[in-house]
Amino acid sequence: MRPSGRQLNEMREVSIETNVTKHAEGSCMIKMGDTHVLCTATLEARVPPFIKGSGLGWVTAEYGMLPRSTTSRMRREAAAGKQGGRTVEIQRLIGRSLRAGVDRVALGERQITIDCDVIQADGGTRCASITGGWVALRLAVNKLLKAGDIVTDPLISPVAAISCGIYAGQPVLDLDYPEDSEAGVDGNFIMLGNKNLIEVQMSAEGSVFSRDQMNQLMDLAEKGVEELAAKQLEATA
Amino acid sequence: MRPSGRQLNEMREVSIETNVTKHAEGSCMIKMGDTHVLCTATLEARVPPFIKGSGLGWVTAEYGMLPRSTTSRMRREAAAGKQGGRTVEIQRLIGRSLRAGVDRVALGERQITIDCDVIQADGGTRCASITGGWVALRLAVNKLLKAGDIVTDPLISPVAAISCGIYAGQPVLDLDYPEDSEAGVDGNFIMLGNKNLIEVQMSAEGSVFSRDQMNQLMDLAEKGVEELAAKQLEATA
Amino acid sequence: MRPSGRQLNEMREVSIETNVTKHAEGSCMIKMGDTHVLCTATLEARVPPFIKGSGLGWVTAEYGMLPRSTTSRMRREAAAGKQGGRTVEIQRLIGRSLRAGVDRVALGERQITIDCDVIQADGGTRCASITGGWVALRLAVNKLLKAGDIVTDPLISPVAAISCGIYAGQPVLDLDYPEDSEAGVDGNFIMLGNKNLIEVQMSAEGSVFSRDQMNQLMDLAEKGVEELAAKQLEATA
Amino acid sequence: MRPSGRQLNEMREVSIETNVTKHAEGSCMIKMGDTHVLCTATLEARVPPFIKGSGLGWVTAEYGMLPRSTTSRMRREAAAGKQGGRTVEIQRLIGRSLRAGVDRVALGERQITIDCDVIQADGGTRCASITGGWVALRLAVNKLLKAGDIVTDPLISPVAAISCGIYAGQPVLDLDYPEDSEAGVDGNFIMLGNKNLIEVQMSAEGSVFSRDQMNQLMDLAEKGVEELAAKQLEATA
Amino acid sequence: MRPSGRQLNEMREVSIETNVTKHAEGSCMIKMGDTHVLCTATLEARVPPFIKGSGLGWVTAEYGMLPRSTTSRMRREAAAGKQGGRTVEIQRLIGRSLRAGVDRVALGERQITIDCDVIQADGGTRCASITGGWVALRLAVNKLLKAGDIVTDPLISPVAAISCGIYAGQPVLDLDYPEDSEAGVDGNFIMLGNKNLIEVQMSAEGSVFSRDQMNQLMDLAEKGVEELAAKQLEATA
Amino acid sequence: MRPSGRQLNEMREVSIETNVTKHAEGSCMIKMGDTHVLCTATLEARVPPFIKGSGLGWVTAEYGMLPRSTTSRMRREAAAGKQGGRTVEIQRLIGRSLRAGVDRVALGERQITIDCDVIQADGGTRCASITGGWVALRLAVNKLLKAGDIVTDPLISPVAAISCGIYAGQPVLDLDYPEDSEAGVDGNFIMLGNKNLIEVQMSAEGSVFSRDQMNQLMDLAEKGVEELAAKQLEATA
Repeated sequence: MRPSGRQLNEMREVSIETNVTKHAEGSCMIKMGDTHVLCTATLEARVPPFIKGSGLGWVTAEYGMLPRSTTSRMRREAAAGKQGGRTVEIQRLIGRSLRAGVDRVALGERQITIDCDVIQADGGTRCASITGGWVALRLAVNKLLKAGDIVTDPLISPVAAISCGIYAGQPVLDLDYPEDSEAGVDGNFIMLGNKNLIEVQMSAEGSVFSRDQMNQLMDLAEKGVEELAAKQLEATA
Repeated sequence: MRPSGRQLNEMREVSIETNVTKHAEGSCMIKMGDTHVLCTATLEARVPPFIKGSGLGWVTAEYGMLPRSTTSRMRREAAAGKQGGRTVEIQRLIGRSLRAGVDRVALGERQITIDCDVIQADGGTRCASITGGWVALRLAVNKLLKAGDIVTDPLISPVAAISCGIYAGQPVLDLDYPEDSEAGVDGNFIMLGNKNLIEVQMSAEGSVFSRDQMNQLMDLAEKGVEELAAKQLEATA
Repeated sequence: MRPSGRQLNEMREVSIETNVTKHAEGSCMIKMGDTHVLCTATLEARVPPFIKGSGLGWVTAEYGMLPRSTTSRMRREAAAGKQGGRTVEIQRLIGRSLRAGVDRVALGERQITIDCDVIQADGGTRCASITGGWVALRLAVNKLLKAGDIVTDPLISPVAAISCGIYAGQPVLDLDYPEDSEAGVDGNFIMLGNKNLIEVQMSAEGSVFSRDQMNQLMDLAEKGVEELAAKQLEATA
Repeated sequence: MRPSGRQLNEMREVSIETNVTKHAEGSCMIKMGDTHVLCTATLEARVPPFIKGSGLGWVTAEYGMLPRSTTSRMRREAAAGKQGGRTVEIQRLIGRSLRAGVDRVALGERQITIDCDVIQADGGTRCASITGGWVALRLAVNKLLKAGDIVTDPLISPVAAISCGIYAGQPVLDLDYPEDSEAGVDGNFIMLGNKNLIEVQMSAEGSVFSRDQMNQLMDLAEKGVEELAAKQLEATA
Repeated sequence: MRPSGRQLNEMREVSIETNVTKHAEGSCMIKMGDTHVLCTATLEARVPPFIKGSGLGWVTAEYGMLPRSTTSRMRREAAAGKQGGRTVEIQRLIGRSLRAGVDRVALGERQITIDCDVIQADGGTRCASITGGWVALRLAVNKLLKAGDIVTDPLISPVAAISCGIYAGQPVLDLDYPEDSEAGVDGNFIMLGNKNLIEVQMSAEGSVFSRDQMNQLMDLAEKGVEELAAKQLEATA
Repeated sequence: MRPSGRQLNEMREVSIETNVTKHAEGSCMIKMGDTHVLCTATLEARVPPFIKGSGLGWVTAEYGMLPRSTTSRMRREAAAGKQGGRTVEIQRLIGRSLRAGVDRVALGERQITIDCDVIQADGGTRCASITGGWVALRLAVNKLLKAGDIVTDPLISPVAAISCGIYAGQPVLDLDYPEDSEAGVDGNFIMLGNKNLIEVQMSAEGSVFSRDQMNQLMDLAEKGVEELAAKQLEATA
């Protein structure tokens, strides 16, 4: 029934290749099917003004899509002169989500910036960005630990994200673009590896959903996050 | 236990004054405690290019805060030269939510713009904007019906929104600003009057929440929306 | 002869409601007929760089119109990405006018920002902003005096503003929108309560005026300012 | 008493050199003492959208200062990414003033843009721009008349502008920069050659002025405009 | 003598992988040593307004660097709100260079946009972009030919680019970043496969060079372009 | 054969008038035929952050065209809200070129900004800007030397620039606008007075050129620079 032939509760194939660029303190290319996102972590000694002197660390994120990562070419945001509303929403979400998995005292007064750049898009880019972003973060933090710059690991648990939605009347896991563009309801679920929730966003455009449906999507999401967290740990082992 | 002395499941006092400005096709001042939002509806014959000729109508929204609606003065976005990420997120949410309660075929090829301007802020401005925005929309649509410009009512059901969160370890309904700034988890729940869901956003900053807690917040939200929908119908009766 | 039925030298009904928002150090809603402007005063310890260390205070102003304060909806300036030329002109005028009534030595090194936001427009919004802005300023300064933060009252005299113009060949006081949009000549007169002049702007679009007519407008303006100053003192007594 | 040694009612030396650039339809370099402004007129067949099809013409203006036209270098507005509030105010004034001297029916549906670029500044640049701008306009209109494109002269009378102010307690004509920066009150007076008024702007910064003083400034301004109009006619004879 | 141990006239290892993204009409990842650039070609039916109806085609380019393509993180241009001067220069150069190798009559009225996004930077990104950009262009044009949309091949010859410079007093081919940051003179040479010149840019910062040195750099460049053109033809064979 | 009737190797008439504005530390109006550029030098004690404390000086440049310096009016860049790509390219080139002729140690920690504003354009404005910019720089540096603020002359040699191109199949010196708009190849050559090269830019749009042609253009350029350097020295003697 799904355009890809997948089962309702079946994720796309996931691969995470680490250390893909030579300059970044941590990096990976995450592929969820045909969605490919390059995630890099940049470590800096400075923190934003609002926490200067607090002893706390900061994790933030930026997101972008290459102009031809999509079916038809999108206008380059740098040329347009500003980041669109969707971009701003997504990068705020990535930063907020990753911070939920960080002990900012243990990190100490330093900043890690996660850049998520979509090389090829086929739905679910924000979830792939969070999942891959955590891998880049993990690798950068590992460097700090190895160098002895910090002693306690500030990463509590993997942070992973997956989309689910109602497609053709059925709850399905990990929407690809053909599903996403048809779905009446779609949601993004961001969790720790232990399935504690960080953020839930469910949204219907020109439609509604019941509390029962919401619970079915939650069940799918828990399955997906479990699989993703295993991939994250494997990639950074 | 709550700073305001309210019960855990008690909303702030809600008032909705209609027809507060002489130019707009529909308007109201909604007050949820000390949060005051002026909502106006503007009716236009033209629709955005992407639906021109489709026969479908469009409902969109814009949101703003007066510079001194808040405890300390915020920079005026017009002077800053752009709408911030938070503003863009909120106005997209308002538009999307209201459209979920509109039969766009029945509305016909016309656009209604809902402007939500926060006169005084004390938490929950986006929820008040949606709830008050629907009232302004209802009044503008009533004019169309009365004038015979449309024959079928395109408004399916009230659209209302309420925030809930975990404050001091307890699930509470309708966070005010002192609660919101302390809450580990907060959520916005947008529903039709019949409690079907339009949008759910739950978010933890530097914290997490369990699925049980999520369900408790949902229960509170359903109670809140029921009360708000009654207020909306009363104000537009 | 006037669309409103007023006498040539008759102002619209004026009301000034004070302390209308809970956060601002001073505030009022001024209504001149159907023109309604919310004025707030924000008190800050810092001053602009160019007077830092001078011991002098600063008063500045910002102006905005809600998108649907007007007959047809105006584009929101924050969405347009900049304040239009008219807005910039008006807010510079408000600031300059109010400063003329302030003893900046007595005020001491602090800044007061007056925000004037037009809730509903029917002509004369810049004059209402100055007149209402002074009331907000007076209330904020009263707080400083009461708290003993300053000892000498820095406010020399009320600052009030009124428009006059040539409508249908006759000099008239306090133009409303239907008059303003037809007037060949219109002027804004800003004075202290003792009728000393702060600023005079008279302008003809596609027309001219004689020195005699200019004097007739001045006579009307003096009458108007006298009445406004009485209202200001009454509201802040 | 004046820094320049001029009499209270004495203008600076005025020269107007015409046809100073080869591309513009009309041009002049106006010098009022050390204030030098290059004015060009551009003639175009198109008019702004709001008068398309009306049969009426349009005259508009833009103003700029070269970065080192002033004592210390000013930031280039193109590099700053926007025209400042002062620039916007001035160019609106120039356009409005020149339109007051134009019969827009006789001009017909065409647009003339006056560019006023300050090469060297020593006070009074907006007045020099208006006076020189009219000369450029006159020359461009002469071309239309000569070519038979229009038959009735749309220019009713010269439009000229002069500043006056209270300097060291005395009313003086044609403020230069040393006077302008010290003056408690200064005004700009824009008139037709027959002394009918187009625009009057008088402004006190941190000071006030009486109606008597206002009249003394008006007297000076009438003398100044008379002299300028003679220069304009001589230059375009 | 060179940091990399290369001979003076030795290029870095070059690889060109084609068809690396599924959406673009043509694409490649070009690697010149540690400089990696993703080049995509987008084919569109529309052309820019200035050639509409001319029957001529258009080739244009955009360039960007991922924030962490460099040793330390660069600010994202979309977040900064504009493309920097260097970016604008480079993308104009890429477009101009590629057009020199295109028969725009044979291409017909269609536009091809080449996006060059630097994934990892180690000097010579603009040259890699041109060389890789031509490969993407070739692949997109092949699709047009294969589909019969055009009959005559509009690509006259490969377009390739290489940098040369004076490093430590010696002329060297294909500067990498450590060389580029030390070189007193550097140049970019863009040629057709037959060594006819399209663009030559030689520049000294705080230094000068003789005409002899210029000729030595030209000799190196010819060698480099010959090798690159062979790689381009091999990759698109 | 040339539209102007000039010989292939004949420059336009060059004149350089110095000290044309009273505020700038150095200034000139350079005329190369009908191309007229006003160049001013501004001397400031501060340097850009990246060389603060280094003891080195800095020379930078900005470029602009008056809106009606061209045949048809160009949009004012300040009104457009940004400097176009061409402007940015040119002003970077001017600054880079002039710095090549400066001993930055001898200049000491101070900045000189060269503003080049095109009053009238007829081709070759960037070359005229560099040549005239050096004259303004020379005059400003002379003031420093005369005042004893610096003891060693930091200006090594004149910096001059000339364009050459292939017009109607022939190499020609100093292209004017009618030639420039037709030329298949054009180049800008920037040299010291002793003909050492600072920057060479040769570019073909929709065409190519051979190495022989490149050498012919170089020969012409050397002749042109020799003549310009003589003019520069004469003007600043």
